[in-house]
Amino acid sequence: MKKAVVLLSGGIDSTTALFWAKGRGYKCLCLVFDYGQRHKKEINQAKLIAQKAGCEYKVLRIALAGGGSSLVNRQISLARPKISKSIPATYVPARNIIFLSFAVSFAESRKANTIVIGTNQIDYSNYPDCRSEFLKAFQRAVNKGTKSAIAGNLFKIVAPLENKTKARIIKTAKKLNVPLELTWSCYGGGKRPCGKCASCLIRAKGFKEAGIKDPCLE
Amino acid sequence: MKKAVVLLSGGIDSTTALFWAKGRGYKCLCLVFDYGQRHKKEINQAKLIAQKAGCEYKVLRIALAGGGSSLVNRQISLARPKISKSIPATYVPARNIIFLSFAVSFAESRKANTIVIGTNQIDYSNYPDCRSEFLKAFQRAVNKGTKSAIAGNLFKIVAPLENKTKARIIKTAKKLNVPLELTWSCYGGGKRPCGKCASCLIRAKGFKEAGIKDPCLE
Repeated sequence: MKKAVVLLSGGIDSTTALFWAKGRGYKCLCLVFDYGQRHKKEINQAKLIAQKAGCEYKVLRIALAGGGSSLVNRQISLARPKISKSIPATYVPARNIIFLSFAVSFAESRKANTIVIGTNQIDYSNYPDCRSEFLKAFQRAVNKGTKSAIAGNLFKIVAPLENKTKARIIKTAKKLNVPLELTWSCYGGGKRPCGKCASCLIRAKGFKEAGIKDPCLE
Repeated sequence: MKKAVVLLSGGIDSTTALFWAKGRGYKCLCLVFDYGQRHKKEINQAKLIAQKAGCEYKVLRIALAGGGSSLVNRQISLARPKISKSIPATYVPARNIIFLSFAVSFAESRKANTIVIGTNQIDYSNYPDCRSEFLKAFQRAVNKGTKSAIAGNLFKIVAPLENKTKARIIKTAKKLNVPLELTWSCYGGGKRPCGKCASCLIRAKGFKEAGIKDPCLE
């Protein structure tokens, strides 16, 4: 059975990417990161999602050397009035670069050569490491720097949601029976989503445009 | 003052790269990894070296998801009879890819855009992530996936020892007053180098060809 390492954050996108990969017949190995987020809620949700999907998962605890993001540094304000075109304060330096590096290492040690990531470059937060241009360049780099690739087993970084709007992702999730009620998008870690952070705003807009009710708000 | 993040393992190459960067006028921020090595000796030596160099250092503890290397998995034998042309059992999947990703993150959060790595592709262990072809591809990737790079501050990954033989590196180290007596190359963590592992063999060959006595064997 072909294997894929799936980066799972507990949000809608990575969860949908996981179910997409399952649907394509991959045996999925989920990788969840505890990188000093402000809250553990998304990590817990990611675990529940992996269990629901019947997949093996691993939580890797990593310490980022710097702290230049409001997602990991409480001294930088999380509040953002609206979805903007610039790179926001929630940007974590090189986060996806680090996550993908671990995914490659995990994949190589488990003889998987597909890595699935739920990034999309339409309704997203303008993080540069979510763009397909970066993903392609990163794939080229790992295919020059790993034992498996040198031996001919090239890695493929697959971003199945790359060019989908949030609304289309949510519709896709519905079709794939993704447990949307388990997903968590809010940058805060309250009992219920705050409804005000950029991530909540993007999510709300997506559900609205998809004409679907967000089960987390019921 | 221009700043560089230096990947420091405590071996001859990374230590020489650190002193090279200092000599070039960089304020160096050393990054040391505790990734579950069989022994902590090289980490301790790296700390001593950073202190000797008068540089700030950070030890990052990371857990690799897989364990497919004899350097982190005690079930795989460390012993290797000789220096070979194939990729050895000491290969740690995607190790430099992970280290460089953290270096980029650290650099970005500290407004440094130079990363110094002591890899060389002459007298080395055939690790694919030490080759300049990989380093160039990785540099291209991070320059497409980071906020600083998008803003025009491109990252540069500098491997000053890239094309030097071990003997030349040792001669360079001598010129730069590198505290070679503090460096540690042996894959084992004994009081003295084992003299048998691939790393000891490459080191011994280098000192011999350089016509210099290894201070660690005195």
